[in-house]
Amino acid sequence: MRLRNVKGSKTIIENSKYIILNPFENKGNWNKIFNNDNEIHIEIGMGKGKFISEIAIKNPDVNFIGIEKFDSVIVRAVQKLEEKEIPNLKLIRMDAKELDKVFNHEISRIYLNFSDPWPKSKHEKRRLTSPEFLKIYDNIFKTQREIFMKTDNKKLFAYSLETLSQYGYKFKKITLDLKNENIDNVTTEYEDKFMENGITINRFEAIKEIV
Amino acid sequence: MRLRNVKGSKTIIENSKYIILNPFENKGNWNKIFNNDNEIHIEIGMGKGKFISEIAIKNPDVNFIGIEKFDSVIVRAVQKLEEKEIPNLKLIRMDAKELDKVFNHEISRIYLNFSDPWPKSKHEKRRLTSPEFLKIYDNIFKTQREIFMKTDNKKLFAYSLETLSQYGYKFKKITLDLKNENIDNVTTEYEDKFMENGITINRFEAIKEIV
Repeated sequence: MRLRNVKGSKTIIENSKYIILNPFENKGNWNKIFNNDNEIHIEIGMGKGKFISEIAIKNPDVNFIGIEKFDSVIVRAVQKLEEKEIPNLKLIRMDAKELDKVFNHEISRIYLNFSDPWPKSKHEKRRLTSPEFLKIYDNIFKTQREIFMKTDNKKLFAYSLETLSQYGYKFKKITLDLKNENIDNVTTEYEDKFMENGITINRFEAIKEIV
Repeated sequence: MRLRNVKGSKTIIENSKYIILNPFENKGNWNKIFNNDNEIHIEIGMGKGKFISEIAIKNPDVNFIGIEKFDSVIVRAVQKLEEKEIPNLKLIRMDAKELDKVFNHEISRIYLNFSDPWPKSKHEKRRLTSPEFLKIYDNIFKTQREIFMKTDNKKLFAYSLETLSQYGYKFKKITLDLKNENIDNVTTEYEDKFMENGITINRFEAIKEIV
């Protein structure tokens, strides 16, 4: 997601109570940031932050970290969140390729919501479910590995089912039409628009037990 | 699939060169029926036989067996096929629950095309990708296990991805929109109609290596 720049983005981001400015320094010590030993779940590509903030409010006993690459996007989340108090939520502006420089076997679940499909095969490595990224995730996952994915993109969904199954993940709660499932679903900004427009949404929960 | 009865079905079936009337007697000796040691692929629920006969003609070095439960359906296949010579094709009228009474580690691939979705959860065991059926298949597969599935039914597709992944299968060539994939696809009677009507078709290849 890219948006037009917000004036003074850098300052707004630097002054936010949610933003962790030097994430690399906390590697191995994220429980201290939250001041508890609860599970940490991250969302890669959190966009404007609707999903991660709502799920954090709903689950106060889990810590959440939203990851976003672009200043122009994360600033929108910061602006919306600043008046709220969500102690179990932090945000990081960073490239997901560097996740294993920021976390050391500290994460219990990754959410991937409407990730960029990178349709061209020459860009396969950039897809957040490519074998390259799955290797990075191995280094940040604590014990059991959980990747929860939602996407409207049929090709990315099919691709991800393939790569994750080949990598040893098993699936639960797959649906090809999320709207018509009777599950407790926290939506993203994109998702609300897609549902209004009748676009079907695919979802899975992938779990890899460590043996 | 159920169809109205064809007069004299029993006689037509009994006299067909394609039909194996007492399949249980050939358990462990199917290579003798075909008089070669080629791989044997089966289709469970072959309907009127368009898919199994076309794929058999295309692949003369593989043996194919079509399985169908209902006399009223298999007789249509027999009537269409009788004038053709397809030496690598046989048909069996039987219930899939008895597959392991008919084959003893002799099958290399199972095709499931537009299988009955049995949507009610109380009928889950009847779905051809239920854990109960996967156990039966274990007894008929030779070494590597391959299940190739096509269905228009989103819930059966999602269910099957779950059960097969939990059972140790891994996926290749998944698509949620078969029509727009550039692959060599032999269609069924149903499939042609679905595609004409714009119904999207889901497909996967599931493989379980024996270690």
